[in-house]
Amino acid sequence: MGQRVGVVGATGAVGQELLGLLHTRAYPLDALHVFGSPASAGGSVPWPGREPLTLEALEAGALRACSRVFFCAGAEVSRTWVPRALEGEGLVIDSSSAFRYEPEVPLVIPELNAAEIPARGLVASPNCTTTLVALALAPLHRRARLTRLVVATYQAASGAGAAGLAELTAQTRAALAGEEVHVEHFPRPLAFNVFPHVDGFLPEEGWATREEMKLTWETRKLLDLPELPCVATCVRVPVQRAHSAAVFAEFAEALTVEQAREALAAGPGLRLVDDPQAARYPTPLEASGADAVLVGRVRKDPSCARGLALFVSGDQLRKGAALNALQIAEQADR
Amino acid sequence: MGQRVGVVGATGAVGQELLGLLHTRAYPLDALHVFGSPASAGGSVPWPGREPLTLEALEAGALRACSRVFFCAGAEVSRTWVPRALEGEGLVIDSSSAFRYEPEVPLVIPELNAAEIPARGLVASPNCTTTLVALALAPLHRRARLTRLVVATYQAASGAGAAGLAELTAQTRAALAGEEVHVEHFPRPLAFNVFPHVDGFLPEEGWATREEMKLTWETRKLLDLPELPCVATCVRVPVQRAHSAAVFAEFAEALTVEQAREALAAGPGLRLVDDPQAARYPTPLEASGADAVLVGRVRKDPSCARGLALFVSGDQLRKGAALNALQIAEQADR
Repeated sequence: MGQRVGVVGATGAVGQELLGLLHTRAYPLDALHVFGSPASAGGSVPWPGREPLTLEALEAGALRACSRVFFCAGAEVSRTWVPRALEGEGLVIDSSSAFRYEPEVPLVIPELNAAEIPARGLVASPNCTTTLVALALAPLHRRARLTRLVVATYQAASGAGAAGLAELTAQTRAALAGEEVHVEHFPRPLAFNVFPHVDGFLPEEGWATREEMKLTWETRKLLDLPELPCVATCVRVPVQRAHSAAVFAEFAEALTVEQAREALAAGPGLRLVDDPQAARYPTPLEASGADAVLVGRVRKDPSCARGLALFVSGDQLRKGAALNALQIAEQADR
Repeated sequence: MGQRVGVVGATGAVGQELLGLLHTRAYPLDALHVFGSPASAGGSVPWPGREPLTLEALEAGALRACSRVFFCAGAEVSRTWVPRALEGEGLVIDSSSAFRYEPEVPLVIPELNAAEIPARGLVASPNCTTTLVALALAPLHRRARLTRLVVATYQAASGAGAAGLAELTAQTRAALAGEEVHVEHFPRPLAFNVFPHVDGFLPEEGWATREEMKLTWETRKLLDLPELPCVATCVRVPVQRAHSAAVFAEFAEALTVEQAREALAAGPGLRLVDDPQAARYPTPLEASGADAVLVGRVRKDPSCARGLALFVSGDQLRKGAALNALQIAEQADR
C-alpha cells in the first residue's frame, strides 16, 4: 500500500528534485499533492512518467490528509504550515531550518540515526553542507571520536535556489561578453569570483554567518556531541551544483590513513574517491546528480596529534536535501 | 642612476605583469633586457610607454651584465640560468621555487624581512599563495606568536599561467553553449567546478600536493618558525585572477578580534576589508589588480583557545609574484 504524499514548495529547486526522486526511486504513492503559493495554485508542474501535477494552494485540511508531507520551501513557510500539517496523522519531513534546533525534534540523516525517525509527527532534515560533512565524518567518529572540526566550504550557486543558478549563468555570459554583470540575488558577483558570505551574518555569533553556525549546531546534534568545538568559513563558488568542503578533523583516538580510508569506503552513503596518482578525488562536477557523497584527499593532518584532512563533494540538492528527506520517508515506511 | 634590468620569462603571466609594473612604478632603468626561449628570440614584447622590446635568447654574458635580474620562468629555467646570472655582480631575484628551500638563500617579502635582502647575489620570492597568507599573518604573529596554521585555498586559473586562464575561458564558453569541455592544461575541468589539486602530489608527504607543502615550508621560513604546525588543502576554483584563502590561525597569546583588526589595518601591504553588515569582505574580483592583500572576516575561532579565523584575497600575479619581486629590487636600491 502506498502513501498519500504532499510536497510543499514543489516548484523550487529542492521540490523539483524531490519530485524527480519520487519517480526514479519508485516511491509507493497512493496520491501525490503538490502545493505552491496562492499565486501559483491551479498551475501545473511537470512530473516524469505521468501527466503534469496541478498545484494546490496550501490548506490545512489537505496537508492533514497526507501521510507523508515534505516541506521544501523556506523556514518561514515551514513555521506557518508545519504546525497545521502536524494536526494530521502523518509524518512531516521538514527540509527547512525552522525546527532543526528544537530539542524534541529529531534531526536525521538515515545513515547516521535512522532510529530517531518517528512513526508520525515531525522530523527535520539537516542543512545541505552539514549533511555532506557529517555523513563523511560519521564512520571516522564512530571509530575514533571526533574532538574538533575545522571546515572551509566551496558552495554551489544552486544552494541559493534556482534563482541563484540562473544568476550565475547570466553573470558568466555577461562577463565573457565583456558586458556589465548584474547582481540581484547574491550579495556579490559570483561569475569568476568567490565570496565568504552564505546566508546572513550573525553579530551575536561574532559575525559568523548563519550557514557557518548551522554547520556547528547541526553537526553537534547529528553526532550527539553537544560541546564539539567547531569552526567554519562558508564560501560561495561559481559552481552550478554540488557543494564541497575542505575538512580538518581531530579525534580522541589515533586513526591511520589506511584505517580512515577503510572506514570511509565502508561508510553508508559515501563513495571513496581517493587516488591522487590518477588525479582522482572528489569534485562537484563528479558529485552532481550522484546519490553518494564523495570523499577523498584523505591524509594525516601533520599539524596536530590525531588529525585527518579530507575533501568532500556532494550534490546538495540530492543527499544534501531532497534525497535525504525522501530516505527519511522510506525508512519510516519499513 | 638607474639599473640594468633583465627579465627572464618576459612573455609569461608573471613576466608580463612585471613589465607593466616596471613602467607604472617608474622603476629607474638604464637598460631593460627581456629574455625568452631560443624559439622566441628576435620576437618583440609590447611595453607600455615605449617602443616594443626585442626578446633576447638567454645567454650568460647578457645575464651577468644586468644589475637586477628577475627570473619569472619556471623552476627548471631558474635551476639552469640563475647560477650563470650569479656569476655577475647583480642582484638576482628568483620567483620560482628552485632555490627557496636552500638555507643560505633568503626568502623575502619586503614587508616582513627586508633586512635579509642582500646587496648582490640571490634572493627568492615566495610562492604566491604563501605570500598572501604570510603577509596577513605577520602582524598577528608579531603580537601573539603563531602556533598552528590551517589553510584552505581558493586559487585562480591564472595561477597556472596564461594557458590556465585561456583554458578556463574556453571551457566556460563551451559549458554555457552545451558543448564538450576540453581539458588540456588542468587535470580536471575547471569551468563551473573546483578541484583539490594544485601542483603535483607528493607521496612522501602523505600525498599532500607540492602547493600545500610550499605553504608549510615557506611560511615556516618567512616567519622564522621552523617547527610551525601547518596543514593546507589547496583548491583550484574558476576564478580568473587573485587567490583567496580561509585561514584558521592559533596563537600563543590571546588577541581580541579588535586587537587583530587594528594590527591588520596597520599591517604593511594589507587592506582590512571587514564590514560584514555592508557585505564587505575580501573577494578575488576586488583583489584583482590591487597591490594590497585584502583581509577580512576576522573573527574568533570558537573551537580553540586562542584562535582567529580570517579570509584573505590577493592578486597572485602582483603581490603574489611580480610586485613582490619588484619590491625586493626597490628595497635593494635604497
